[in-house]
Amino acid sequence: MNVLIVYAHPEPKSFNGAMKDTAVEVLTARGHEVVVSDLYAMGFQPVAGPADVEGNLINPDFFSLATEQTAAYDGGRTAPDIVGEMEKLKRADLLIFQFPIWWFGMPAILKGWADRVFARGFAYMAGRKYDTGMFKGKLAMVACTTGTSADTYAPDGIDGDVLTVLWPLHNGLFRYSGFDVLPPFVVYMPGRVGDDGRNTYLEAYRKRLGGLDAVPRLFFHPAEDYGPNERLRPGVLARSGVQRNV
Amino acid sequence: MNVLIVYAHPEPKSFNGAMKDTAVEVLTARGHEVVVSDLYAMGFQPVAGPADVEGNLINPDFFSLATEQTAAYDGGRTAPDIVGEMEKLKRADLLIFQFPIWWFGMPAILKGWADRVFARGFAYMAGRKYDTGMFKGKLAMVACTTGTSADTYAPDGIDGDVLTVLWPLHNGLFRYSGFDVLPPFVVYMPGRVGDDGRNTYLEAYRKRLGGLDAVPRLFFHPAEDYGPNERLRPGVLARSGVQRNV
Repeated sequence: MNVLIVYAHPEPKSFNGAMKDTAVEVLTARGHEVVVSDLYAMGFQPVAGPADVEGNLINPDFFSLATEQTAAYDGGRTAPDIVGEMEKLKRADLLIFQFPIWWFGMPAILKGWADRVFARGFAYMAGRKYDTGMFKGKLAMVACTTGTSADTYAPDGIDGDVLTVLWPLHNGLFRYSGFDVLPPFVVYMPGRVGDDGRNTYLEAYRKRLGGLDAVPRLFFHPAEDYGPNERLRPGVLARSGVQRNV
Repeated sequence: MNVLIVYAHPEPKSFNGAMKDTAVEVLTARGHEVVVSDLYAMGFQPVAGPADVEGNLINPDFFSLATEQTAAYDGGRTAPDIVGEMEKLKRADLLIFQFPIWWFGMPAILKGWADRVFARGFAYMAGRKYDTGMFKGKLAMVACTTGTSADTYAPDGIDGDVLTVLWPLHNGLFRYSGFDVLPPFVVYMPGRVGDDGRNTYLEAYRKRLGGLDAVPRLFFHPAEDYGPNERLRPGVLARSGVQRNV
């Protein structure tokens, strides 16, 4: 497999850094090709806007990100820093996002990688989403750390189910663009568990990475479960309740 | 009231821009003081990191965002662009986030505003969260646009319940730091509804802004519903099912 790890942490000696290093080591040892986008080290610029396009805008009087992304991609005028990431993503069979959960989501530098690299024309377009998404056949996984406990991220926890917190990323970014999605590998409060706890987590992460084929993918309803209005058909709804990962 | 609108769109003539202008007009006419942080116009830098601190880091060998944010805030060494936003937020009774939903969340420039401005020591600290959050008594609201239909954001829609998509922001950012939270004002596909549809949306937004006192706040379980492990007490769980907004 070709693997792309998009890594977003300002401190190389952080536990996120250790998880990234562990993934590179384990996956390389198993014969995979691993590429890392170290966004902080790259000084990645995360703000989507007119500078994402080289040359003239389609409409200089009204900037539409979707319109300009599509035209730039089709015309080979996407900014070089984005093209470099798109090329890595095209080659990847497995995409890993490695990040600390900051304010219940990705650090801005990683969100902006998604905003700019998952551009219209490249990552989605009319009629191409979910089961027919552009990246069908690829696999994605979140590997992240938290600042609060596993209890707080339980379905009845005060922070909300970790799968609800990650829903915008799992369903919204990955599944929308066609990926199959592995369950997240979540490390709770790595700063509070001591060296033994951290080593236990890294060992578990090694095992996860060494046995990805055996890990059940997250459940998302297939296209046929939805009616023409993109809501679950009544029979499906009665069977499954609201749409959620299980 | 003092109102802070944090506005994130690269195009002033966008519908997000029109919503921001409408809010300024309506709220000012009602006697409120309105301040806008126009993040694209400001060239706001959204990447949290060592540059958020002036002078020496507490630990130059290991950058911890939470540690450095706290020390910087306590010592008056927070970077000036962040301090400016903190001052606006301190004065605000109502905070509005105005943004297009990009990849099921905030544009990176706005996520980074949260990462940097909602700093530890200022926006949260040990023992101060949710019902005891630092911004208790303030009110917050999302005003956003989507690229897909209201059906797709229904509880049984393919994109997921809009309240699930916004959970990380409603519960995770706003409620965690003590805000009461108004229901989001969501404009579905403003590019597809024509001038009449857009005017109808703006008229509805005027009405919303003119009657905020009468709008029921989003429901979040109060502190007493949680046990010492920050999970819902058994009786509460049986009554409410999983933790969700209603």
